[in-house]
This record gives sequence, structure tokens and C-alpha cells, in this order.
Amino acid sequence: MPGAPEFDTDFHESFRNLLIWRRDVRRFQTHPLPPNLLQELIQLACLAPSVGLSEPWRFVEVSSVSRRQQIRQEFERANTEALAGYSGEQAALYSRLKLSGLDDAPVHLAVFSDPTTAQGAGLGRQTMPETLEYSVVGAISTLWLAARAHGLGAGWISICSPERVHQILSVPPEWRLIAYLCIGYPDADHDTPELQRAGWERRANSAAPLLER
Amino acid sequence: MPGAPEFDTDFHESFRNLLIWRRDVRRFQTHPLPPNLLQELIQLACLAPSVGLSEPWRFVEVSSVSRRQQIRQEFERANTEALAGYSGEQAALYSRLKLSGLDDAPVHLAVFSDPTTAQGAGLGRQTMPETLEYSVVGAISTLWLAARAHGLGAGWISICSPERVHQILSVPPEWRLIAYLCIGYPDADHDTPELQRAGWERRANSAAPLLER
Repeated sequence: MPGAPEFDTDFHESFRNLLIWRRDVRRFQTHPLPPNLLQELIQLACLAPSVGLSEPWRFVEVSSVSRRQQIRQEFERANTEALAGYSGEQAALYSRLKLSGLDDAPVHLAVFSDPTTAQGAGLGRQTMPETLEYSVVGAISTLWLAARAHGLGAGWISICSPERVHQILSVPPEWRLIAYLCIGYPDADHDTPELQRAGWERRANSAAPLLER
Repeated sequence: MPGAPEFDTDFHESFRNLLIWRRDVRRFQTHPLPPNLLQELIQLACLAPSVGLSEPWRFVEVSSVSRRQQIRQEFERANTEALAGYSGEQAALYSRLKLSGLDDAPVHLAVFSDPTTAQGAGLGRQTMPETLEYSVVGAISTLWLAARAHGLGAGWISICSPERVHQILSVPPEWRLIAYLCIGYPDADHDTPELQRAGWERRANSAAPLLER
């Protein structure tokens, strides 16, 4: 088909660098994104695959100071609870980790899935209904890479009760929270994960083994 | 930090093209991938983010003719059942859709999550344990884009019972199936989804709206 692009070795190399330098960012500069960049990232995210072409992603930008404060409190509550599950050295290390950029990130973006969507007419969702949520995750992955390509960092907060976040944001009751993201310009760029730099966990030295069946 | 790459507007344009021309492919050429390319794609996929740096992805290449036949039968069974849920025009259209490339794709790749992994020590998984599966979805999204950059197509089969696939592939009991992928060179390149070309569903005309809270 005419028009299909070729991706050359220069692109392969740049794409690999994009993956290597994408981080889960928790340390942000406070200055805002240029106008329309967030919308541009969401537009790119919407090019992600979705089961049955259901496009179940729903994006919510959280700007209200009061709602941000409540999200911050919910993170603190859940993080304190998580800390209580560790002991000794591990607890001490956990308490030193910076696990969210909620205070500084100029953009808070909550991403939901809408399981009631009629779009796609249920195709592909009978045996693995979870692919609806997975479609939203694919959109988030795409947004994350697009953000990095524009010099932005994103951080995914999972230390919060999804029901509580849902309540704080007053979104339709049937929606399901997939991610609460912080987005902004990172303090610094890194090619290794923050959890590895902080001594919590190490990346596997090589790719996962490929089992044969 | 020295070494961090800049991604220029040429890259932005190519990356956007990559997203536009990535498809869920069901029509494959049968010839194999070059040696090591699958391993290279998996290596790139392993650069995806994972909750607590848990890297829970497990990759299984399915080459056995007998196992492939059983997967094919399971897809047929689940697809017949799915068809029974539609009626009239919609059923007629569904029955004409090609929903898998299982017969022709040179590579079958099953991707699992290992919820028992000690890696990451549970960090970030207390309140949203589903982020473990989501991490595997992120790796699959990455692999999908990397495949397209190399001219390859991938198709995600969700029309199958994950328990039955698990049984056919004899993988550790605690693993959870996230995706069964077909990978190979596509018959043709397209910039619109096959389900749209076939008249099943249309893509939204624009990006999802950004709600404000």
C-alpha cells in the first residue's frame, strides 16, 4: 500500500533510546507544559490498540487544589499502610524512597476505563474481559513514551485506593481507575530506574528468557 | 546528566507514523523472522516500566505443531460461542471477520504474568495489585511498537479461555495469561484498523475529550 513508512536503523536506534531513557519520574520541575501539549499526547495515546476497537479510555485532568490535596492525603494514608508491611532494614529503606511527584508535577492525569461502553459491541471481550482494562494500559504506555519524546516525565501512582480516588474525582460510577499519573518536566534524566538507584531492586541483567513449548 | 538524548521533530513525526501504522494484524505472510529478531524485540519489551521494578513478564514461544493445533481449536470453540451472542446482520458480519492469524503467523508468543514473583518486594502492589498484570501489558505494547518498527505485525488473540491456553502450554500453575500473540510479516500495511475497514466499528474521529476536575 502506498504511503506506508519505512523505519530505518536510525529510527530503531532512537526508539531504543526512548525506551532506555523513559523513567517512572517522581521528581518534577513545577513549570507548566506548553499549551496543547497534553492534548497532543492524549491524541497519540488514542492511537493505541483497543479490544474490538472499543477505545474505552477516559482521561481526567485534576487541577482543583482541593481535589489534589485529597489525592495527596490518600497517597499518604496508603503509603503509611504499605510501610507497615515491611520491617527492619527494608522498612527503613522504604521510608526513604520518594514514591510520588504529587506535590510538584504540573499535571495530574487520572485515566479510567469505561466497562459499559457499547463501542466495539463486545467483540473480543467474552473470554478475556480484562482486555478492556488492558487497552487503557496500552494507551497509557503510548502516552508515556510520547511524553518522554517531548522531554516530559510521567510517574504512575498505584499507592492509593482506586475507590477513594474515584470518589474524590466524582466520575461516573461505572468507570474503573487504571492509573493516576503525574506529568511534567523531570528534575534530571536517567537511564536507570529510580528504585535501582535507591537500592530497592535491580533490573534483570538481560531480557527475560524465552521458554519453548 | 550527560548522555541523555534529545528527540527532535523528525523523531516525533516518525514516532507518530509508527503509532498510525501499527495494526492488530490477522493476515500474515508465512516466512519466518530473521534469526534473533524475536529475542531483540523481547529485550526491548523488557525496558517497559513495571510496578516496583517487579518485571513480572514471562514469554513463551509456541512452536509445537500439536500445541498450535490445540490453540487453534480453542480459538474456534470460543469464536463459535462468541458468534452465538450476536444475531441478524451483526452475526452475519461477525462471521465474515477474520479474527486471528493463527494459521499463517510464523511466531506464536504467549505472554504471562507471574504474581508470585518476589522481585520488587511487593512495592506499589498493595492497593492496586492489578498493576502487576498492567506491567506485562506495557511490555506487550512496547514489543508491538518495536515489531512494527521492524516491519512486523502483531495480533492479540483474546478469543480463547485463558485457563485452557494455560493447560495447553503446561506453564507453572501460578502464571496468568495476559496475551496470546501472533507475530510475522503482514500481508499488507494499513493506517486504519481492520475492524473499521470491515465495517464492524469506527474509530472515534478525534482524541478522547479531556475532562476537568
